[in-house]
Amino acid sequence: MSQASLKKKALDYHRLPRPGKLEVVSSKPCATQADLSLAYTPGVAQPVLEIAKNPAKAYDYTNKGNLVAVITDGTAILGLGDRGALAAKPVMEGKAVLFKQFADIDVYDIEVNARTPQDFIKVVEAIAPTFGGINLEDIAAPHCFEIEAALKKKLDIPVFHDDQHGTAVIICAGLINALHVQGKTLDSAKIVCLGAGAAGIASMKLLLAMGARKSNILLVDSKGVVHKGRTDLNAFKKGFARATKLRTLEDAMNGADVFVGVSGADLVSPAMVKSMADNPVVFALANPNPEISPAKAMAARSDLVMATGRSDYPNQVNNVLGFPFIFRGALDARAREITQDMLIAAVNALAELAREPVPAAVLKAYQLKKLKFGPDYILPKPFDPRLAERVPQAVAKAARKAVRKRR
Amino acid sequence: MSQASLKKKALDYHRLPRPGKLEVVSSKPCATQADLSLAYTPGVAQPVLEIAKNPAKAYDYTNKGNLVAVITDGTAILGLGDRGALAAKPVMEGKAVLFKQFADIDVYDIEVNARTPQDFIKVVEAIAPTFGGINLEDIAAPHCFEIEAALKKKLDIPVFHDDQHGTAVIICAGLINALHVQGKTLDSAKIVCLGAGAAGIASMKLLLAMGARKSNILLVDSKGVVHKGRTDLNAFKKGFARATKLRTLEDAMNGADVFVGVSGADLVSPAMVKSMADNPVVFALANPNPEISPAKAMAARSDLVMATGRSDYPNQVNNVLGFPFIFRGALDARAREITQDMLIAAVNALAELAREPVPAAVLKAYQLKKLKFGPDYILPKPFDPRLAERVPQAVAKAARKAVRKRR
Repeated sequence: MSQASLKKKALDYHRLPRPGKLEVVSSKPCATQADLSLAYTPGVAQPVLEIAKNPAKAYDYTNKGNLVAVITDGTAILGLGDRGALAAKPVMEGKAVLFKQFADIDVYDIEVNARTPQDFIKVVEAIAPTFGGINLEDIAAPHCFEIEAALKKKLDIPVFHDDQHGTAVIICAGLINALHVQGKTLDSAKIVCLGAGAAGIASMKLLLAMGARKSNILLVDSKGVVHKGRTDLNAFKKGFARATKLRTLEDAMNGADVFVGVSGADLVSPAMVKSMADNPVVFALANPNPEISPAKAMAARSDLVMATGRSDYPNQVNNVLGFPFIFRGALDARAREITQDMLIAAVNALAELAREPVPAAVLKAYQLKKLKFGPDYILPKPFDPRLAERVPQAVAKAARKAVRKRR
Repeated sequence: MSQASLKKKALDYHRLPRPGKLEVVSSKPCATQADLSLAYTPGVAQPVLEIAKNPAKAYDYTNKGNLVAVITDGTAILGLGDRGALAAKPVMEGKAVLFKQFADIDVYDIEVNARTPQDFIKVVEAIAPTFGGINLEDIAAPHCFEIEAALKKKLDIPVFHDDQHGTAVIICAGLINALHVQGKTLDSAKIVCLGAGAAGIASMKLLLAMGARKSNILLVDSKGVVHKGRTDLNAFKKGFARATKLRTLEDAMNGADVFVGVSGADLVSPAMVKSMADNPVVFALANPNPEISPAKAMAARSDLVMATGRSDYPNQVNNVLGFPFIFRGALDARAREITQDMLIAAVNALAELAREPVPAAVLKAYQLKKLKFGPDYILPKPFDPRLAERVPQAVAKAARKAVRKRR
């Protein structure tokens, strides 16, 4: 499809026959006076009184337990940067569509005009009674770290910043399988991460929790390698600062086993890919244009396993594999937070699923003759119906284990 | 139905088969990878860019233009008082059901934990980009007045406090018709209003705007008649303070043409009703139990026209006659506020509709053989399909007139 016709198609999709992508409907009968006397006054007084006595009853009598807020301040919209709260609305509605389609979770998109992280935190805290979970979205680093940490502390419902943890879960699941395909393991892999924002920091943290070694990770930002000598680092980058003489991305790539790019288009050259260790893994995840195109990377060397953020190449690192199912599990277990153990459970469930034989329904959905674990299939496909069982179950199990530990 | 069985029925309705009354669904196809590439990345970038360039495009590409927030702090829930934000959720969801059922308006219910009116105002202001209109609900007086006034000033979308203006519109429409039935007019009617909260103050203000005289209105609160000698009055009550020697409700009722009760059960005695002028009008609107029951009032005298808040007596003063259609008109005209002219347009549309012959469909819906303008039919029935045309049209017309005036 041409650029112009894609644009028209996308705008028409959003505009016709009615603007936007969401509709709020009644889930109960409401066609007669008798129905309405239950839905509203006088019948509605009964659940009000029950909830006033015991707040947990909100999970029995309202939509709270299946309702997630997708909340943004619009400071880091997709690859488009800071465009303000209102302009983020189509993305947040789109996220709601995905939540519903993949995990039957109801979402209100909320676009917040807030000048400071403190203001944003106050707003989300104030409206939290409405929801069973909070999905933070498209909030720029480093504010996103502060916002998430504060809300996790203040609220008794799961708070999740998808650009951090959702992305991290899919990257980790993909990397584990890619390393497996290449005959390598996480604990000895030399990893370069280009991009030190929400996704980069969170992914490296989750990799550490799953067995990667800090001394094997090189974080690279727009100024080069994050090293001990730098004085311009925020607290989150500082945690990854290495005592090293390496300075440039080029330096870092030399001999690396794994490259994770969550940065920008075309920042990686074929020469850099050539300089990596044998059987390397290249995750070039910048959207819509990767750090290096699969065509260029494959031309540079044939022994690599590659993933991108795009659906038109194999191995798409797509957040939709994560957030709907992670929240489904958290809501089903009525978890008060989304813990690292729950994220790791999701990683493992995704990685394991990709190693299993693929059902005919999935082949059909993607018009494929076969699909088998290997260099071109390291992550499950989004429309794989097994996702909706496996991942939520694994997450909910980890959540319940955490509750038992707390007791 | 017994009290116990109504309770069970209401709780079951809210709980089964899934908790709550609302569901958020996609209004666009989203079953394939191709659909999702329009609903989310990469297609969604197009409407984002359009809205970033021109904020008005949010009305073309998102659900904003048909989306109303029903927002509360839970301080004045129905007749149940201050039960906190969370306990208000069933009522707000119920309101959403009514908005959708009667005017095809999508609603997100938002329950806000806020300690002060300032906090509440900040929260609503911050999340306003999400919505095309704000319906404030069940917020206690006098804070509700301050909150509404501040938000009207700050926001460029309609802000409406239904407990004030929605109620006022229905009361005014009913009163105009009741006075007509009794052969009286608004400009000479002596009016007693018992209850000086949101509904009482707003109703009296709207009556003034429609031709009632301040010197004919007696406001009565829990301390008695609101008069110039009182030192305990807030600014809103002060506006109605009269130089009078009348002190009690009993004093006020003597010779009155109209009683409007928005207070509590059983506060009016048969003797008080007897002391009113000939052919009086009694609106005993306390919910669920009126200031005096129709049975008792009718036993006291037979020349009255009476209305209550209940659906099991004739002449129900029911807000559902107003808010869905007022917002429909405001959204259709893309009004920036809901003006007094728009409220008056709604009053007149409702009052006129009740004087017209009733269509067969309405008789059928209410299992009635006939229904004719008169003492027992002064307001349209909620399931009258003509409401959805007449009232929004009248409101939108008034809105467009206001815009022309502004230019």
